[in-house]
Amino acid sequence: MTATTHFEQPTMDDYPTRKGQQPALLYRKDPTVWNQAASGPMDSATLESYDAKGYLQIESLITPDELETFRSELSRLSSDDELKQDQRAVVERASDEVRSVFEVHTISPVFAELVRDPRLVDRARQILGSDVYIHQSRVNYKPGFSGTDFFWHSDFETWHAEDGMPRMRAVSISIALTDNYEHNGSLMIMPGSHRTFVSCVGETPEDHYRESLKKQEIGTPDQSSLSILADQHGIDVLTGPAGGAVMFDSNCMHGSSGNITPFPRSNVFVVYNSVENTCETPFAAARPRPHFLGARDFTPVK
Amino acid sequence: MTATTHFEQPTMDDYPTRKGQQPALLYRKDPTVWNQAASGPMDSATLESYDAKGYLQIESLITPDELETFRSELSRLSSDDELKQDQRAVVERASDEVRSVFEVHTISPVFAELVRDPRLVDRARQILGSDVYIHQSRVNYKPGFSGTDFFWHSDFETWHAEDGMPRMRAVSISIALTDNYEHNGSLMIMPGSHRTFVSCVGETPEDHYRESLKKQEIGTPDQSSLSILADQHGIDVLTGPAGGAVMFDSNCMHGSSGNITPFPRSNVFVVYNSVENTCETPFAAARPRPHFLGARDFTPVK
Repeated sequence: MTATTHFEQPTMDDYPTRKGQQPALLYRKDPTVWNQAASGPMDSATLESYDAKGYLQIESLITPDELETFRSELSRLSSDDELKQDQRAVVERASDEVRSVFEVHTISPVFAELVRDPRLVDRARQILGSDVYIHQSRVNYKPGFSGTDFFWHSDFETWHAEDGMPRMRAVSISIALTDNYEHNGSLMIMPGSHRTFVSCVGETPEDHYRESLKKQEIGTPDQSSLSILADQHGIDVLTGPAGGAVMFDSNCMHGSSGNITPFPRSNVFVVYNSVENTCETPFAAARPRPHFLGARDFTPVK
Repeated sequence: MTATTHFEQPTMDDYPTRKGQQPALLYRKDPTVWNQAASGPMDSATLESYDAKGYLQIESLITPDELETFRSELSRLSSDDELKQDQRAVVERASDEVRSVFEVHTISPVFAELVRDPRLVDRARQILGSDVYIHQSRVNYKPGFSGTDFFWHSDFETWHAEDGMPRMRAVSISIALTDNYEHNGSLMIMPGSHRTFVSCVGETPEDHYRESLKKQEIGTPDQSSLSILADQHGIDVLTGPAGGAVMFDSNCMHGSSGNITPFPRSNVFVVYNSVENTCETPFAAARPRPHFLGARDFTPVK
């Protein structure tokens, strides 16, 4: 009984968030690279850099032919009227255009194959030091001229609070299907910020995900914490050609500017989580988000 | 009589805009550098580059002491409650904060001195090949976290249509009072775009400036023209430390992204026009804009 009560204490949560009125900067309690010695496609310099910065870039991950295939598939999904009715599709109301499709590895055979590709999975395994499963997958389409910004956030904060992910032991990979310039709303990361957990204020509302997919307010870091992190770490704008990729830690502080240029941006995004870090009861929400946002099927990718 | 009628034909306008339903890309009919041989602070390589790109950057134009003085003066102006009531101050409704102060060289003794400084005026004279007067001056303050974007536009299009500026013979100088990074909404220019005039559609509404200072719609280039210019010229993001400056041609296609970073941006902005290019009747508006947006006093800066 004592043990049970003990575990129910909120103080047992290393990453408390959305519990109080005061934001806080907390130390990370988990490694970033879980398996320094393990074999895999990346050399030790790459892993050390990932450990320090919380992200790494791969200049060319897929072939030009694959790039064409993925672009066509994205285009096919965007024009699928049936899919627009699916809750896994985020449709912009003003233009009726598809902006994101979640759980794309179950919707598209092309992307189902991609998420199992050793170029992705072997790297994820190498970083996380175990087998991995897919916590989330999606394609994003951010048009030119009017792409909106995405404010600073840590994915882990949401996954911990709303999906019940216990530890920082997940890695995201974003494969660029268009060129990322410094001017068209590319991913911005504060390098090194993954070592600090920003505990956010507020309480998660019921069905928060319906709003947060469009514009997140709860789970948003406060300006003072962001200023401290930005002064300490600076901000990297992650540019690179289509076909390249970024892998980044679940707790990186990241965001993106709007895009007034004519150049659209699209990418495929996959989150691998360690099979030793499967999701439990949410740490700060009444119930877990739907499976297409935070998987409840923990079958390892093989 | 014939001659008068002839001059009244709209076809005599080399830069027609806001007249029809179709946008158009037109050749520039004016030089960019009007006085290649004239003496001045800039060497011929600098002028040639300005001629080709339509802008130039000065890494350090003012001293650190001046920078502090200008920042203090900006801060003083921002907190002047009387000035907030002045039509020359643009105040953000949501925050009640001053975003811009126009005609700042008549409001502030500090900036009155700056706009007469030989470091600015000699460069403007050298480019424009004549004496110059101040068409517009302002200070801008773009806060961190929430700075909004400014869509692509040519200043000349507005000055021609709404202020009656006849030719492309004006130069803007923007002095950075904060560091400009690639991530905090710095000025973006399509280098070389100053050689093309984008004729815009729509008709200028009465008192258009009241709205256009916040969000311009009339006089906005169409997406197709912008795509052509961006494909042809690319986009430069103009970064640099506080104390530096950018000079750019009146017809540069430019804009800026929003700013979600904690780093605010502020600058002093002065437009010099040639005394041989003084404003006339607007080319596409019922009457000229107020003098604080487009001066009607053409006294040369001495």
